[in-house]
Amino acid sequence: MNASSAAADGEGLGAVAGASGVVPMDGDVCSPAGFRAAGVHCGLKYRKPDLALLVSDRPASAAGVFTTNRVQAAPVRYSRRAVEDGDARAVVVNSANANACTGEQGDRDAEEMARLAGRALDVDPRQVLVASTGIIGVPLPMDRVRSGIRSAAGELAPDAGAASRAILTTDRWTKTAAARFSADGRTWTVGGMAKGAGMIHPRMATTLGFLTTDARVPVPILREALREAVDGSFNRITVDGETSTNDAVLALANGSAGGTAVERGDALDGLKAAMAAVARSLALEVVRDGEGATTVARISVTGAPGDAEARAVADRLATSPLVKTALHGGDPNWGRLVAAAGSAGVEMDPDSVAVWVGDVRMVEDGTAVAGAEEEAARALDGDEVEIRVDLGLGGARHHMWTCDLTEEYVRINGSYTS
Amino acid sequence: MNASSAAADGEGLGAVAGASGVVPMDGDVCSPAGFRAAGVHCGLKYRKPDLALLVSDRPASAAGVFTTNRVQAAPVRYSRRAVEDGDARAVVVNSANANACTGEQGDRDAEEMARLAGRALDVDPRQVLVASTGIIGVPLPMDRVRSGIRSAAGELAPDAGAASRAILTTDRWTKTAAARFSADGRTWTVGGMAKGAGMIHPRMATTLGFLTTDARVPVPILREALREAVDGSFNRITVDGETSTNDAVLALANGSAGGTAVERGDALDGLKAAMAAVARSLALEVVRDGEGATTVARISVTGAPGDAEARAVADRLATSPLVKTALHGGDPNWGRLVAAAGSAGVEMDPDSVAVWVGDVRMVEDGTAVAGAEEEAARALDGDEVEIRVDLGLGGARHHMWTCDLTEEYVRINGSYTS
Repeated sequence: MNASSAAADGEGLGAVAGASGVVPMDGDVCSPAGFRAAGVHCGLKYRKPDLALLVSDRPASAAGVFTTNRVQAAPVRYSRRAVEDGDARAVVVNSANANACTGEQGDRDAEEMARLAGRALDVDPRQVLVASTGIIGVPLPMDRVRSGIRSAAGELAPDAGAASRAILTTDRWTKTAAARFSADGRTWTVGGMAKGAGMIHPRMATTLGFLTTDARVPVPILREALREAVDGSFNRITVDGETSTNDAVLALANGSAGGTAVERGDALDGLKAAMAAVARSLALEVVRDGEGATTVARISVTGAPGDAEARAVADRLATSPLVKTALHGGDPNWGRLVAAAGSAGVEMDPDSVAVWVGDVRMVEDGTAVAGAEEEAARALDGDEVEIRVDLGLGGARHHMWTCDLTEEYVRINGSYTS
Repeated sequence: MNASSAAADGEGLGAVAGASGVVPMDGDVCSPAGFRAAGVHCGLKYRKPDLALLVSDRPASAAGVFTTNRVQAAPVRYSRRAVEDGDARAVVVNSANANACTGEQGDRDAEEMARLAGRALDVDPRQVLVASTGIIGVPLPMDRVRSGIRSAAGELAPDAGAASRAILTTDRWTKTAAARFSADGRTWTVGGMAKGAGMIHPRMATTLGFLTTDARVPVPILREALREAVDGSFNRITVDGETSTNDAVLALANGSAGGTAVERGDALDGLKAAMAAVARSLALEVVRDGEGATTVARISVTGAPGDAEARAVADRLATSPLVKTALHGGDPNWGRLVAAAGSAGVEMDPDSVAVWVGDVRMVEDGTAVAGAEEEAARALDGDEVEIRVDLGLGGARHHMWTCDLTEEYVRINGSYTS
């Protein structure tokens, strides 16, 4: 039942694409045809870009997934409604201020952001989606946001460099990705950008993420492809187990590259695989750039009695401070893994557990494999590691990506001004 | 509905006793009559005491509560069975090695510890309970344990100083407490000792704790009093959200101080209050001495629609890394409190939330109270703070104690050898 290495349940940590006809490429949300973007500094941050516009030159199908936190920021409430009709032309995003816990003024501000962007872009404001990220509980300085939207509208270009910087908060680097897929003699492109780096946990649409494609995609198909892409990516990462009030991943499909609508067959498979690959690449970048992170771990749980149990144990392992500090210390501490698994609140038979670190089996039938420790420590001695816990109870599996817990995480969050 | 300060739901952080006829006192497990203890160094740790014996001079009622982790150490399995008949004469405890995930050998070793202690003390081995704490997954070096039990049996005295040191792991100081209670013209004593300082979370009987009393207490009454005492103390503390494989709190009542059995009325009220006070004092010491901790916070949730909701939100607040790092930074970051509450998985109306830090109301009806921040920062500027989140939805409440998350926690756990 226990296969022979940590990666036995499928794709390794580094694999990003490789599915049917999907080719990863350098790129971003402007790689697909017919998208332009801008990022400007309007004074929300000190000097850095803090306001972004992403615009489709023609009407686009739109879909979104949003945080499950019961406390939802005004832009989340706004965009959740705005995306319901399934089309959009633009997204306006600000960083440094979440517009969360800001009462009715917050709702008015989110709506005004859409209205201003619509006016500046000469599109219906109902076609503009809004996203914000940053400090909670402080009203948006709307004078700055207004001037930012005006400037950004004047700087639109098929280049997402500044936009991908403008959406960041405590991130150390920008997160962009792109991939091409082909079917029926035609090629389309999917692009994306995202931000990290704290309050990252998969209770639906962790972080802010934006996906674009120049394929024509009916709304129900786009929604399905987005849901699947997020489920395999943003919903499998954790930095600190915190669920933000502002999480959103939005997708726009504008059909600029021509061809018939992507609805079935190879084209649909390709679209889904490309969106999944781009989302996964972005999500992994979010973990790599997790606050204070120096190591990324792919934690997989196999042999679970059911999907819910596999998820619960993977979630517990990926958020355990003792597992995450052991990752930081490069310590192949399987006792912490087994103890954390045992506290996940699901059935477990300690005597049937196996643990792998990299390709090294450290635990078999619940007890230590003699002499495995040194080799396991070597397997942990990198910036990307694989850990697998097999429960020996069934066939269900789940995996998540997490990062180490470091002193730097505490420094960042012990001094982040409220 | 929202009362006027963080402490509105009852006892403040510092209050330990004060209930009917209960007088806190300096003391430990040997303060009650008829108990002796010993702590020796047998080589499990480098130099420090690492094996303890606690003995009642006469047969005692016994009760225990144990970890809910699905992975349970051999001594937990052993003592859970051994305490079922409701009487005991002694407890043997070792630190530095948890005897967890050690297979059948672990079970044999726990049993041998009881047998050796029974022989050395000339009591039935079935009257000996066993507890272990320390590294998981390493077989107990039984040669050292054997010699330790023999030495300890020769050093028994009515002094728990060495025993309370011998049960520690990463603790910085010993944790002991005692209290007297009186009824019907007679006085009895309750004493206790405990250990911290990591893997602390309330999924039943966090840490190791030992309570003694010289009252005569029927087994069902002792079990009830222990359950209640633990529910108000060890089950309300968290350091890192981790549930140990070895948690146990054991109570012995030997009747050495005479009097009729404590079964009802003032005597029963006094016993319960004294056990609760001692357990609470020990539990608070565990949080104060939490790995890396510099600040203790009493987090209370009021206005919840039901008890389960109150507990879920309190648990989420007390374990949130962003709340715990804000505590460390002395940052009255109510946005993190509200966001964490919103991610607890229970119903919540953001517009009815209120937040107090100390006596300062920072949030009312879900939005910031202007100008409260400076005063709140002063309220956080101590080593014990009070935080209250009122959900404004009902009358249920719960409170927990937690500590800050510091760089030192990461240092301790990033370098603890597996």
